[in-house]
Amino acid sequence: MSTSSTPPAPPPSNRISGTAISKEIRAELAVECSSIKSTVTPGLAVILVGSRPDSLAYVRMKKKACAEVGIDSFGYDYPETVTQQELIDKVNELNADPKVHGILVQLPLPNHIVENLVTSAVHPDKDVDGLHPLNCAKLVTAQTHGGSVKMNWKDLKSIPFHIACTPQGCIELLDRSGVEIEGKRAVVIGRSNLVGMPVSLLLNHRNATITIVHSRTIDAQSVVRTADIVIAAVGRAKMVKSDWLKEGAVVIDVGINSVDAPDTKKGYRLVGDVDFDECEGKCEKITPVPGGVGPMTIAMLLRNTVNSAKRVCGI
Amino acid sequence: MSTSSTPPAPPPSNRISGTAISKEIRAELAVECSSIKSTVTPGLAVILVGSRPDSLAYVRMKKKACAEVGIDSFGYDYPETVTQQELIDKVNELNADPKVHGILVQLPLPNHIVENLVTSAVHPDKDVDGLHPLNCAKLVTAQTHGGSVKMNWKDLKSIPFHIACTPQGCIELLDRSGVEIEGKRAVVIGRSNLVGMPVSLLLNHRNATITIVHSRTIDAQSVVRTADIVIAAVGRAKMVKSDWLKEGAVVIDVGINSVDAPDTKKGYRLVGDVDFDECEGKCEKITPVPGGVGPMTIAMLLRNTVNSAKRVCGI
Repeated sequence: MSTSSTPPAPPPSNRISGTAISKEIRAELAVECSSIKSTVTPGLAVILVGSRPDSLAYVRMKKKACAEVGIDSFGYDYPETVTQQELIDKVNELNADPKVHGILVQLPLPNHIVENLVTSAVHPDKDVDGLHPLNCAKLVTAQTHGGSVKMNWKDLKSIPFHIACTPQGCIELLDRSGVEIEGKRAVVIGRSNLVGMPVSLLLNHRNATITIVHSRTIDAQSVVRTADIVIAAVGRAKMVKSDWLKEGAVVIDVGINSVDAPDTKKGYRLVGDVDFDECEGKCEKITPVPGGVGPMTIAMLLRNTVNSAKRVCGI
Repeated sequence: MSTSSTPPAPPPSNRISGTAISKEIRAELAVECSSIKSTVTPGLAVILVGSRPDSLAYVRMKKKACAEVGIDSFGYDYPETVTQQELIDKVNELNADPKVHGILVQLPLPNHIVENLVTSAVHPDKDVDGLHPLNCAKLVTAQTHGGSVKMNWKDLKSIPFHIACTPQGCIELLDRSGVEIEGKRAVVIGRSNLVGMPVSLLLNHRNATITIVHSRTIDAQSVVRTADIVIAAVGRAKMVKSDWLKEGAVVIDVGINSVDAPDTKKGYRLVGDVDFDECEGKCEKITPVPGGVGPMTIAMLLRNTVNSAKRVCGI
């Protein structure tokens, strides 16, 4: 028997790294942008209202990410006092601008503006956030304007309409981590228009059997325990505990919650909807927060923008 | 001890009669039409292509039902050879016609016509079948054009858009039978655009916890067995057996399947997706086929048409 000092290989990590996967996707998009450069440079218009620090940070990150992959970004910044009509006029101008393939209205907008009147003004073809009712409807019916089409849901890049970025990112994380979706039981916690509902519809199209859990669900815990795949998108810090999970579940944590942390410099820490430390050992795979779903949202925005440019050019 | 011959009272039936409930609704609509007569007579345009016996029968029933409650119906019959553009032109003409508050395109259309290009041409306000993508999107997001609104889902009559008739009929059957939806576990079998998906979304809005079962679900039976409310909408004769059900489940059977019955004059019999004879004893309530969901579809079409007329007149 050897007492060799070669250390044992570290156990394979069960963490799904959104940071690494999104980097991979951005590198692919950079190659793609470079290969279509002679025909088109994808362009993203970003409308920002006011000066919320989180909105400023998101917009800065999005523009930086655009630059890195080779997408032109065009910023339109407005004061808090802008009128709804001014924003809609700008959207209409951008709808007609051939340099712009995607239009992003950074949310939230101030209270005097009806958000979905502005986001619905974006032409569905340029709606890279996937918020327009027509893009939303296609997610239910899987129909394109040209008729009922059997979508290739396996390859989201081929879908001829825009799917909201965060839900699309969740599916991409599963796919790129080798998680089979078809035939699985998936439980989605949360039923928001931005994440819970669309990710449920996507999982259904990919032939998972979905259950949607929400605030009025009685004994949510026992429902979640039936799931092979759990998507937590409810916005409550560490709500999902290890006894909510089936042994070997795959967990995608969409939540980003700020909790007090006097021991840190910032005084707070970001945590997910899942109690990561408690659950990690029980999961087949799990996304951390931060570094899980978060980085995927921007990567999917970039992909939607590149797809939009390619479609316009018939590539 | 008396040996009196008074027979024991029959056990209270657990059947939900769509025939009786739809009659009740039609009577209410007749009163409503009569009360608004001095302002408006609701009008339904019915487009029929070809001469399929089932389509002819449905159109005949719909027109007859209109007449009974006081809705004007206008029929437009086309030969099998009509072009897609002719139909779309007619739809556009009807969109502009103030006497018409609802437009119904009887499906299926012949193969050379892309159905959803015709149904999507119907103005959403006149889309009493609830098939337009914008009406479908509202069912997901619960948003009206004017902003995010807390819908009164408890009263479908108050919803400011059109909900597809069969799914709406399922909910109405539950409501009028005193079945509480909120907090219940509901399993929908089938994920069609016409029934399974919209009825799932409606149940979710009414705060049920929904699961959608489909052809790729593994062990559908054990999933269905978790349900307080089962909606079967899959189109397979007698698929759901009594051992699929939890004791005391409520079952709404949307299926209408024709099975051979040499002992009958017609040679066939209509049965649901649920094995009624086997399941009836185990259910708290159950709809028969025929006489369950079927009659509700027309009643909801009438209601959508009356609602549409009232909205136009601001009533």
